[in-house]
Amino acid sequence: MGNISALFLPLLVVFLISPSVHGGKILVFPVEGSHWVNMNLLIQSLHARGHEVTVVRTATSWYIKESEPHYRSITVTLPEAISIEERDFFIMFLDKMLEIKRGGASLMGFLNFYWEMLMSLSKIHQQASLLAVEMFENKTLMQRIRDTHFDVVLLDPGLPAGVLVAHELKLPTVFNVRWITSGEGHFVVAPSPISYVPTSGYAASDKMSFVERIQNTFFYVLNMWIDRFVVCPHYDRLVDRYYGPDVDFYHLLQGADMWLMRVDFVFEFPRPTMPNIAYIGGFQCKPSQPLSSELEAFVQSSGEHGFILMSLGTLVEGLPVEITTEIAAAFAQIPQKVIWRHAGKRPSNLGNNTLLVKWMPQNDLLGHPKIRAFVAHGGTNGIYEAIYHGVPIVGIPLLFDQFENILRLETRGAATAVDASKLNRQNFLEAVQEVLHNPTYRENMKRLSELHRDKAMHPLETAVFWVEFVMRHKGASHLRTDSYKMPWYAYYSVDVVCFLLAALLLLTAIVVASIRFLCFRLCRTRKPKQE
Amino acid sequence: MGNISALFLPLLVVFLISPSVHGGKILVFPVEGSHWVNMNLLIQSLHARGHEVTVVRTATSWYIKESEPHYRSITVTLPEAISIEERDFFIMFLDKMLEIKRGGASLMGFLNFYWEMLMSLSKIHQQASLLAVEMFENKTLMQRIRDTHFDVVLLDPGLPAGVLVAHELKLPTVFNVRWITSGEGHFVVAPSPISYVPTSGYAASDKMSFVERIQNTFFYVLNMWIDRFVVCPHYDRLVDRYYGPDVDFYHLLQGADMWLMRVDFVFEFPRPTMPNIAYIGGFQCKPSQPLSSELEAFVQSSGEHGFILMSLGTLVEGLPVEITTEIAAAFAQIPQKVIWRHAGKRPSNLGNNTLLVKWMPQNDLLGHPKIRAFVAHGGTNGIYEAIYHGVPIVGIPLLFDQFENILRLETRGAATAVDASKLNRQNFLEAVQEVLHNPTYRENMKRLSELHRDKAMHPLETAVFWVEFVMRHKGASHLRTDSYKMPWYAYYSVDVVCFLLAALLLLTAIVVASIRFLCFRLCRTRKPKQE
Repeated sequence: MGNISALFLPLLVVFLISPSVHGGKILVFPVEGSHWVNMNLLIQSLHARGHEVTVVRTATSWYIKESEPHYRSITVTLPEAISIEERDFFIMFLDKMLEIKRGGASLMGFLNFYWEMLMSLSKIHQQASLLAVEMFENKTLMQRIRDTHFDVVLLDPGLPAGVLVAHELKLPTVFNVRWITSGEGHFVVAPSPISYVPTSGYAASDKMSFVERIQNTFFYVLNMWIDRFVVCPHYDRLVDRYYGPDVDFYHLLQGADMWLMRVDFVFEFPRPTMPNIAYIGGFQCKPSQPLSSELEAFVQSSGEHGFILMSLGTLVEGLPVEITTEIAAAFAQIPQKVIWRHAGKRPSNLGNNTLLVKWMPQNDLLGHPKIRAFVAHGGTNGIYEAIYHGVPIVGIPLLFDQFENILRLETRGAATAVDASKLNRQNFLEAVQEVLHNPTYRENMKRLSELHRDKAMHPLETAVFWVEFVMRHKGASHLRTDSYKMPWYAYYSVDVVCFLLAALLLLTAIVVASIRFLCFRLCRTRKPKQE
Repeated sequence: MGNISALFLPLLVVFLISPSVHGGKILVFPVEGSHWVNMNLLIQSLHARGHEVTVVRTATSWYIKESEPHYRSITVTLPEAISIEERDFFIMFLDKMLEIKRGGASLMGFLNFYWEMLMSLSKIHQQASLLAVEMFENKTLMQRIRDTHFDVVLLDPGLPAGVLVAHELKLPTVFNVRWITSGEGHFVVAPSPISYVPTSGYAASDKMSFVERIQNTFFYVLNMWIDRFVVCPHYDRLVDRYYGPDVDFYHLLQGADMWLMRVDFVFEFPRPTMPNIAYIGGFQCKPSQPLSSELEAFVQSSGEHGFILMSLGTLVEGLPVEITTEIAAAFAQIPQKVIWRHAGKRPSNLGNNTLLVKWMPQNDLLGHPKIRAFVAHGGTNGIYEAIYHGVPIVGIPLLFDQFENILRLETRGAATAVDASKLNRQNFLEAVQEVLHNPTYRENMKRLSELHRDKAMHPLETAVFWVEFVMRHKGASHLRTDSYKMPWYAYYSVDVVCFLLAALLLLTAIVVASIRFLCFRLCRTRKPKQE
């Protein structure tokens, strides 16, 4: 071991002699919900490194407290808040989805639903864009921010109002990102050949059939359309208002100095990337801690059979009763113990082996030696924890990216999925049994876990390194191409190809004309002779 | 500082608990000359980590010794060696280049020269491909290699015979690469939009004018042509002979597990990359050591003026006398001392301030506080050493990639170039004075140096990490796209676009036909009435 440490000492030395950025100042624009869980972890680390973190939040923020020991905040009051309660909204949304999937909705019903969804998306972004307006119009606030002399803006571009503020303050930006405006972050910054890169919203692998590639193209065009006509107009308007036609909102997104992508290639399919993307997927993962004595006793009571964990995430806590009843019935039939995070009505047919909890130490349970499987909706936080601890998944994807997330693990043979709209006690039990008793799921997940953990640097440290890098050097422009500033026809060399084709055509025309002219002359010289 | 060490301790822990691969076995296929300098350094590190390294060399190898303490070798005797001496070859090549650039050659002369160059290239690859044949036909040798149970093949794919051997042995491959077959490595493995990625052999920046983009396209097509018709046929033939039509040589290249790219983005323009590319540019750089007392005395005698270093690399040591005379005359006019690595005839007009040497500790001199500028041909090893130590460059590019290399530093304002074919004492002196007295060159190079050094991990350790990663996991297929196996029309979605266009056309035709049919029916029902 001495040998290895000695070899890697220079590594630490290189790091430690880097110009110090202690006492740096970071302005953060987070996004709510599970996004905040991630961002909060990153700013805790940045605070521990001696930086001063200021978080911009709205007065009606769900999760982001006004202040915590590791950050202070700027609270912005928006003129109107989203009128419906988040939980109700998502539950209504889920109900509608399930109805449509069960065939209980007409085409018109579906289109209506889709249109409503787009309107909600539009409204969310409209609200988000107002954050920038409120800040810009508050001259005192802006002066205070300017006087603070921030070094960098760290933001989650899922709701990208912060890029306007960063542009206004002329500060370098670091994105903590998976989703941006209406699609996956890579689609904005890296070449994404849609022949093998599945589009956001379309659950396909990187090996698509001809029909799948047609569908992928359709979703790609749809996403582009949503981006251009539903999401971006809200920000375009502001950019136009404050900076005029010379500044392009999309270019502000593409001009970010560094993209900390919450992606790891044990999960995401391999695809083109860029020098200013650093991969921090699973940066929230950490070794498990001992359980409370009650929980440990429950888990130990499972004996050799072990236990199963079930959680469907932070947003949807209330599955319809007809589904929870089926799940409870299936669980009652297995010898394993079950810990089920469930906030809705207690199913009447719950087995003795199943413990309902409102909250649980998910990471510690996933890291417990007796765990056998994880029943999950497929949010990325839970998936990365499962990968980290090598626990195979029974997926019940419900919303958004959860379908494609679960599919990524299915493709690797580390998960199986159950369609929530068709879920009954038989097919759910079968899925659980399959993952419990077919050893390949666990083996594949263990292999992903090994690959994921085998890094020279923990993803959280990678994230901290790059935030500090951007602070030290006031940007990272040497890693970012300026190609996004090119007009599309130049980027795709359309003008060059047209020019070369035209030149070829002209050349051909000249040659043909010359030959015809020569023939004509030849004929005229010969004709008199014949006459 | 205690704070930082504590935070980064987990980093070391993650690394140290990685599954051990001590006693791994590595089969290496290097390339001669400056390429070997790099590869040798990497295998020294791998040997220091406890691995057993076996190098495959030819019996007529110029630089690669039969054995050294850190490796053993397999020596292969090729049926015929390149008939001309390497130095003579390159000097002849350079003479011809200079003659052409000075306008001393006709178009036919130029084409003739170009054709000869292609023939040499073809011959070099033919020879290189024979290495695989000699190995395959030597059944005893192949059995011995199989019995050794190597873990990985490490190769420089500039001459890629090793990929065939790796394929035969079914071993994962790691490339130590900048040039592959006939172009820069990225062009084989990553999307390379030629609208902003300058093609190998064409000295342009990443911000090209319309005319430059046309020229870039021309060079791209030329390189593709050379690759397909001059270089690859030698290997295609072998693949066909040993594996039949189902295996494609180009796919063997594209299927490498890991690409250790000798590139850093302080030097290379930012461009798309892939998850299985790790950047190790400058991995040979290290802090300078004290000079010998004579050299130190000479350097110190320069006083406040400091000294200049001049070296034109390992391959071309003999510049034409008419050029060296001009250089000597220019050097004689400056107050700086000059250390000039020169193997040719001593210029008669050498100034007292200039020391000619056959060899010099280049890295130690570049790291000396009194150095003011580096006169260099623009080989990448020297360039990275100059970047590492922050020394601005006066470039005299002579051959191959040296023109594009120097241009990359010119674009960053860290170098100026002199055209060797037009070099005289005046313009050379001006270039030297410019770099000595305009502080921006030094400042820009210092900035590149800071960016280059600011890494969480030294590039050499990155290289070692990935070689061991591939050994630990028997490949890194989760980082490699399989998209290269798609037919080109599928990769570029040509089939999908054609299908969608055809569908659109059919739809239009049906609509038009329906309308016409309806009109026709309508007319027929009306006509009788009119009649």
